[in-house]
Amino acid sequence: MYQAPTSDMLFVMKELAGLEAIAKLPGGEDATPETVEAVLHEAARLCGEVLEPLNAEGDRNPSRWESGNVHATPGFKVAFRQYVEGGWQGVQHPQEYEGQGLPKLVGTPCVEMLNAANLSFALCPLLTDGAIEALLTAGTEAQKQRFVPKLISGDWTGTMNLTEPQAGSDLAAVRTRAEPQGDGTFKLFGTKIFITWGEHDMAGNIVHLVLARTPTAPEGVKGISLFIVPKFLINEDGTLGARNDVHCVSIEHKLGIKASPTAVLQFGDHGGAIGQLIGEENRGLEYMFIMMNAARFAVGMQGVAVSDRAYQKALAYAKERVQSRPVDGSAKAAVSIIHHPDVRRMLATMRALTEAARALAYVAAGESDRAHGDPDEAARARHQARYEYLVPIVKGWSTELALEVTSLGVQVHGGMGFIEETGAAQFYRDARILPIYEGTTAIQANDLIGRKTLRDGGAAARALLADIAQTVDALAGQQGAAFESMRRHLALGREALASAVNFVLAKAKSDPNAVFAGSVPYLKLAGIVLGGWQMARAMLASQRLMQTDPKFHGAKIATAQFFAQHVLPQAVALEVAIVSANGSEGVLALAEDQF
Amino acid sequence: MYQAPTSDMLFVMKELAGLEAIAKLPGGEDATPETVEAVLHEAARLCGEVLEPLNAEGDRNPSRWESGNVHATPGFKVAFRQYVEGGWQGVQHPQEYEGQGLPKLVGTPCVEMLNAANLSFALCPLLTDGAIEALLTAGTEAQKQRFVPKLISGDWTGTMNLTEPQAGSDLAAVRTRAEPQGDGTFKLFGTKIFITWGEHDMAGNIVHLVLARTPTAPEGVKGISLFIVPKFLINEDGTLGARNDVHCVSIEHKLGIKASPTAVLQFGDHGGAIGQLIGEENRGLEYMFIMMNAARFAVGMQGVAVSDRAYQKALAYAKERVQSRPVDGSAKAAVSIIHHPDVRRMLATMRALTEAARALAYVAAGESDRAHGDPDEAARARHQARYEYLVPIVKGWSTELALEVTSLGVQVHGGMGFIEETGAAQFYRDARILPIYEGTTAIQANDLIGRKTLRDGGAAARALLADIAQTVDALAGQQGAAFESMRRHLALGREALASAVNFVLAKAKSDPNAVFAGSVPYLKLAGIVLGGWQMARAMLASQRLMQTDPKFHGAKIATAQFFAQHVLPQAVALEVAIVSANGSEGVLALAEDQF
Repeated sequence: MYQAPTSDMLFVMKELAGLEAIAKLPGGEDATPETVEAVLHEAARLCGEVLEPLNAEGDRNPSRWESGNVHATPGFKVAFRQYVEGGWQGVQHPQEYEGQGLPKLVGTPCVEMLNAANLSFALCPLLTDGAIEALLTAGTEAQKQRFVPKLISGDWTGTMNLTEPQAGSDLAAVRTRAEPQGDGTFKLFGTKIFITWGEHDMAGNIVHLVLARTPTAPEGVKGISLFIVPKFLINEDGTLGARNDVHCVSIEHKLGIKASPTAVLQFGDHGGAIGQLIGEENRGLEYMFIMMNAARFAVGMQGVAVSDRAYQKALAYAKERVQSRPVDGSAKAAVSIIHHPDVRRMLATMRALTEAARALAYVAAGESDRAHGDPDEAARARHQARYEYLVPIVKGWSTELALEVTSLGVQVHGGMGFIEETGAAQFYRDARILPIYEGTTAIQANDLIGRKTLRDGGAAARALLADIAQTVDALAGQQGAAFESMRRHLALGREALASAVNFVLAKAKSDPNAVFAGSVPYLKLAGIVLGGWQMARAMLASQRLMQTDPKFHGAKIATAQFFAQHVLPQAVALEVAIVSANGSEGVLALAEDQF
Repeated sequence: MYQAPTSDMLFVMKELAGLEAIAKLPGGEDATPETVEAVLHEAARLCGEVLEPLNAEGDRNPSRWESGNVHATPGFKVAFRQYVEGGWQGVQHPQEYEGQGLPKLVGTPCVEMLNAANLSFALCPLLTDGAIEALLTAGTEAQKQRFVPKLISGDWTGTMNLTEPQAGSDLAAVRTRAEPQGDGTFKLFGTKIFITWGEHDMAGNIVHLVLARTPTAPEGVKGISLFIVPKFLINEDGTLGARNDVHCVSIEHKLGIKASPTAVLQFGDHGGAIGQLIGEENRGLEYMFIMMNAARFAVGMQGVAVSDRAYQKALAYAKERVQSRPVDGSAKAAVSIIHHPDVRRMLATMRALTEAARALAYVAAGESDRAHGDPDEAARARHQARYEYLVPIVKGWSTELALEVTSLGVQVHGGMGFIEETGAAQFYRDARILPIYEGTTAIQANDLIGRKTLRDGGAAARALLADIAQTVDALAGQQGAAFESMRRHLALGREALASAVNFVLAKAKSDPNAVFAGSVPYLKLAGIVLGGWQMARAMLASQRLMQTDPKFHGAKIATAQFFAQHVLPQAVALEVAIVSANGSEGVLALAEDQF
């Protein structure tokens, strides 16, 4: 059973992400220690007791398409009612639209738990969050009043409609048309694919946010607008009206997250799907990016969540399964496999990566809260820049490592891991979408280079490097092998990251292929070093707090030491691939026809 | 469609594995260049035209259990007849038992093609090969005459029955009983699980090789004997007799290789399954290890095979799928995605890992041939030691990298990769068993440390290190960035491997937990350095041969350069995890109850 790691969550929130300071910011007043603990424990209960038991069922008995309707896995609809009635959809959203108005830092562990319990289920609230963000960002007051409370109450859910068959990573290629009707509404025509929870029976209406082009729009990304297209039209009094002309023609047969229906939506086959513009014409991509930063962060949390779930399952098996004598001859009988060094190495890898990714993501959430709430304008800008720098790393690194962690989860189970009924394989399959959707790892890496490193001349990156240097100094003040290992490898990792940043800044104009050939290695390098930095900060905090809980803090220091010795050294290898290799040489030396 | 990479196969066989010299050894006479090319091209045809088209069908329509019988995927039975009638089961087996008697080096590319085309199908011949090896190793002449020709002709197939519910990695825990009947036969009682192709309808009989204990057997691994238990008993005249008391009670529902039935076999529920001993009582594990070296090598080839198949599929998609403009602004329109640097990096990674793993495996096959055929006894021993050192690396490294390569194969496809109909996901699922069965990667790593490094005091490892040093010197004699990169990173990798070997030798007795905590990192380090060594040898050969085929040899040098810059640098990071971390500290600092 899934046990939410509330101790580690609270430790990270308080000691690394600055919960106390964030609670003092305007809008953070409700995040008292008591409230936060109560929220986390209540979320843990719902996720562990209600949502997790439906996870395997969703895999065995996926969402099912029938004559244009999609039936969710049995049990999901009732669970969804429990979820929204508990107020969980509104945790991070403003109180004026019926949300709870809690900081993102407090919402983040709730998101983690939800995804750890049931990745497929969690996608419905995740996409609804995205729709709410878009409406709050660019909607009129009337639009916000009309849609947001209904989305928070779960009467309706939301979707994001970006992808078309010819327009995946490249939104410039979007072709869906939006024709103005003269009455302020538009009629939309086109096909959208890969629409998560694009059709289902868990709520009374579905609010599709759709990228489309008006007839006068310029070509490319500067001619894309954002529209609201509800499944059922909404009457003036807010009640549901006629069925709109958007229909689900099929759902995909997928490797994982099978309970989450991935819809092909057809707009306008019967006269046109009626929609309304959000914000200004041709600024749709800009709004989408605001919303995507939130969605990308949430997908990064999915990576943390499924990693933790896979770790918990593997750990339980390793403590239970008895096989072989210990290699050190300390027992004559077979022992539980957690006593075998390589099983322990695998578990430590899973744990260290998960804890580091969690810490980095929560710290990013805290930056977002400060970017909104800090009374000082310059400070807000600094926090926003740091949050934006971290988002592609949280998304890209946490999801890539989820592949490794869920794979190790299978491996710990041995042959049983390959048997579907065991359940470890589901996490492995489910996790595989994470580095793909909401922008592949390469798209995150391009964002990290283009918008997040080059645009500010490396300022956000260098501010982070300066902070890491301070942590390296603080480590030097501590005794013992664990701190010495971390000091050494964090310092080497910091140098590697600094070198990669300099390379990106120096070469982006003169040799873009060289820089972009190293883009994913740069993202991974940044993830490893920034994750290692959080583990270093964590071990310093644990050293200070040791007496309060020797078991927890001792484990944290040991896990940090493992990260320093087994994960951080990879930074230097990545630097070689980016910098010494001059990025492109090895990658681009092969001509297309030589592949 | 699968196109066997015959150019690279022949290059590796001739330039790296010494085909010409092996053809001059006793027993190698038939391996003339013309014969070898003909064999490879014929195998390529069969695999590409007959077996590969059945691969997706096997995934959609797996083997099916019904009242104790297992029906293979439609089409498999006919294809199996074609396979055995072409003589493919006997390629590597002696002519005196109706085999073709070709060197292992020539059989190996055939094994690769078979597995690349259809991993599930290929498992049936793979297990039959194992049974043949066991019979040839330990069987009486009568047993060989009775069983081997029928196994080579495909009238019968073979299985290996090791695992029991409580005895997976730990064969000491085997409980299946074998009771002597006084007439030279035994009756077997017990349950075996995870028996690949343990029941099916593709052949007239199934020859189970079963590990079991006689009543007087000592405890543990020294009390295990090996038995032949055919599904149908065999009359004196060689015709099939009564149905034996071994029954398939179920097959598993698996993550991948779904067409390959994984059987639970019940022995003796109706009076006892009649079997005969192979070789001497209580020496079963020893025979099994001989056979397992062959089977483990073959599973390593499965890793190479599915990696190549995933690469070919991703490459075809990358050349076809058009998305986004190039980052260097060289075109105003969207281009095929192979023009994007990160897609090219992914493809280069897939290609470099696959080529290196292929080269290392073929070189190992050549060592096996020399170990059998070299006229000089000391030379035979040296080649045998090298082959045995390489087997766990070929098995462990090639299968672990297959996870990375098949995962990249999904990633190159973007969202389409997650849709089952695309086919990339099948390779990802299928590959996941490879680092588990025939001994997990940890079991391979324990073998590498225990039997292959410690037992000879590091002699085999040091002989390899000396040969690598010679290649480093040869690289220094070449001009250009590619050779300089390889020289630098192969030298660093060699030092890292030497350091790990010294650590293993120095600490195994005094601190076995420290050594075994670094066992899998040591195996991966050895794979990376030895694979890199083969890429270095390949680039030297390609430089010499450049004029004969500039496109092929230019690609080889560029791929080797990529390996040097993107893969070899990981060796240094692994050395830190093994040596500087003193193996155990980070891994074992966490007590069981702190996990």
